[in-house]
Amino acid sequence: MPFEVVREVPGSEARLGCLRTAHGAVETPTFVAVATRGAVRAVAMEDLEALGVQILIANTYHLAVRPGPELVAELGGLHGFTGWRGPWMTDSGGFQVFSLGAGKVHGVGKIASIFPGEDRPRRDPAGVSLVELTEEGVWIRSVLDGRRLFFSPEEVIRIERLLGADIVLPLDECTSPFHDEAYTRRAMERTHRWAERALSAFEGTRGLGPNPHQELWGIVQGGAYEELRRASARTIAGLGFPGFAIGGSLGRSKEDMYRVLEWTVPELPRDKPRHLLGIGTLEDIVEAVRRGMDLFDCAAPTRLARNGALLALSEPGFRLNIDNARFRRDERPVDEACDCPTCRRYSRAFLHHLLRAGELAYFRLATVHNLRFMVRFMGWIRAELAAGRLPELPR
Amino acid sequence: MPFEVVREVPGSEARLGCLRTAHGAVETPTFVAVATRGAVRAVAMEDLEALGVQILIANTYHLAVRPGPELVAELGGLHGFTGWRGPWMTDSGGFQVFSLGAGKVHGVGKIASIFPGEDRPRRDPAGVSLVELTEEGVWIRSVLDGRRLFFSPEEVIRIERLLGADIVLPLDECTSPFHDEAYTRRAMERTHRWAERALSAFEGTRGLGPNPHQELWGIVQGGAYEELRRASARTIAGLGFPGFAIGGSLGRSKEDMYRVLEWTVPELPRDKPRHLLGIGTLEDIVEAVRRGMDLFDCAAPTRLARNGALLALSEPGFRLNIDNARFRRDERPVDEACDCPTCRRYSRAFLHHLLRAGELAYFRLATVHNLRFMVRFMGWIRAELAAGRLPELPR
Repeated sequence: MPFEVVREVPGSEARLGCLRTAHGAVETPTFVAVATRGAVRAVAMEDLEALGVQILIANTYHLAVRPGPELVAELGGLHGFTGWRGPWMTDSGGFQVFSLGAGKVHGVGKIASIFPGEDRPRRDPAGVSLVELTEEGVWIRSVLDGRRLFFSPEEVIRIERLLGADIVLPLDECTSPFHDEAYTRRAMERTHRWAERALSAFEGTRGLGPNPHQELWGIVQGGAYEELRRASARTIAGLGFPGFAIGGSLGRSKEDMYRVLEWTVPELPRDKPRHLLGIGTLEDIVEAVRRGMDLFDCAAPTRLARNGALLALSEPGFRLNIDNARFRRDERPVDEACDCPTCRRYSRAFLHHLLRAGELAYFRLATVHNLRFMVRFMGWIRAELAAGRLPELPR
Repeated sequence: MPFEVVREVPGSEARLGCLRTAHGAVETPTFVAVATRGAVRAVAMEDLEALGVQILIANTYHLAVRPGPELVAELGGLHGFTGWRGPWMTDSGGFQVFSLGAGKVHGVGKIASIFPGEDRPRRDPAGVSLVELTEEGVWIRSVLDGRRLFFSPEEVIRIERLLGADIVLPLDECTSPFHDEAYTRRAMERTHRWAERALSAFEGTRGLGPNPHQELWGIVQGGAYEELRRASARTIAGLGFPGFAIGGSLGRSKEDMYRVLEWTVPELPRDKPRHLLGIGTLEDIVEAVRRGMDLFDCAAPTRLARNGALLALSEPGFRLNIDNARFRRDERPVDEACDCPTCRRYSRAFLHHLLRAGELAYFRLATVHNLRFMVRFMGWIRAELAAGRLPELPR
């Protein structure tokens, strides 16, 4: 039984779980640290182990471009190549199809903020798509050299077999919050056909690559349209995947996103794990856990760290901006309640100095803190669920 | 007895020693890791401890510009502010007087390479001095905002009292290898007057700052002129400093530098420690140890690491360039003989990938290796001396 629901909170979809992989078990809900190119920015694998990070996610598109899947396979797959011997996931590159394609043209991210009075995207005048979508697959430019690469559902599975992550995702099309229902439906139906092709390719490539214990999870699409999300969840669930991810446009606001989860989760089997792709503010995680999600990957905690935003529950907005001049002579650690190596040794004043001086040491110390914060935050969520309570953020 | 000569190698100036400070003992010969702004680039203090680094050197000029000595003092001096609780040195800013002044105008570094047929500097057309030297002291531009700062021998001592390093150096004037003997002599004589003023200021500021156990060492100047070097060593030794540094121009070649050491060391008291400022190739360290030097600071090992040059005795030139395409699929560690965390876990192929991908994690992994190399290298030198042998680099 690779996934086990350990405890459910009555009257809700929320649950405590345990996901077993060939490279170790993962207690859920959990935060999946983002290692796009095979490394979490600014930290080493031994840091991640010491911090209690359980699982990493790499990106198929980025690793296909460099160093290439054949090389990674030759060096033992992601586990051998990168030195992270715990569980790995790989995202399919579907999000890059969006971010380099429609997302670029529409000038939007995963959730679009609508400015008052605007119901259309702010088009980026330089927003030229680097992507060409066909039924067969996607032509996409290499970010390295502009070379055109062709990603079909079958090619993505082949690459993921070679990379050897424990959990892999099929090629999908993420739509933009500014795509209409008709386009979103067509994209969703294509994503469903691609999911079936990915499943066949996955079966047909058993034995390929360094990891014989991979799982292919399905991705639910459908934008912020209730009928589409429910239809997509039912269709993808019907294909028999051992786990699910919710991808694509989650609407134009947090409320839209929560509604998407409320439509989708009840259509998915209760005994299978559910991953919310690319979402990770503290508020979003708590709300998504309450609505039944088990895994979350997001680059925000590590990116925020590099930009000076250090996470602490005691601070307004749950973060402090260490670049702020008020920390110049502040002898306290970032967070009195934190047990990370950064908080145990360094003052806010020294971190402020390192950031201002552009010292490389800053990036690791800050990233270590934010990752440990996420590990402890997810641990607190699991403790609440274990006690039969729904987590609630302090106000 | 703050410095003890543990063993001398007969027929040479070389010796094994032990330097005691209020923040711990240092076995010599040793490599002093460069922490210009209070942090060694790309690594944390706990990394340095784990690697066996014994002592750090920060820069008075850079810390005076930011965050300012009063702030560092308020937060417990360098030991409290930075989290490095072991021995600290501070350089005086004299080298910045050179690098932003004559070094910039002459377009030269510490040792000038003369190109065949050229006996004059290649003048940098943009080489405008940011420094104005007077008998009283130095006007120097802030690298941050162009503000003019005045550094006198007394002001430098006041700043170093506030920073609180265990070993501090007085303001000096480093000359360029292209200064003639007459100018070098005038500069040396001024440096001697500044040394006396620094000593008085040091006595007059007892009780100032966070560290009551500071030592002020003297700096020998005199360029690559035998008469001047011998005179400077005798004069500075005569002022009664408890330790000595050899600074300034060391000539136009390695052979010039070795001659400078051969003139200088015999003029210094045998029972006092000797630091060679800013020198640190493996060959230079071995040759300088043979000629009686005890401490070395140099940014090269950490800077080389960031540029892809990883140290290994088994490689030609004692380094490999990890950016080289031949390491793309090389599963070996950087150095089979190395026990550092990087060599124990990561392949050359993965480090090559991280560097090519511009991943921040690269800088720490590479720096950790080169620093551990230097620690092991100095340990090997000490073992040779302990066995009564002069160290000799493998060819």
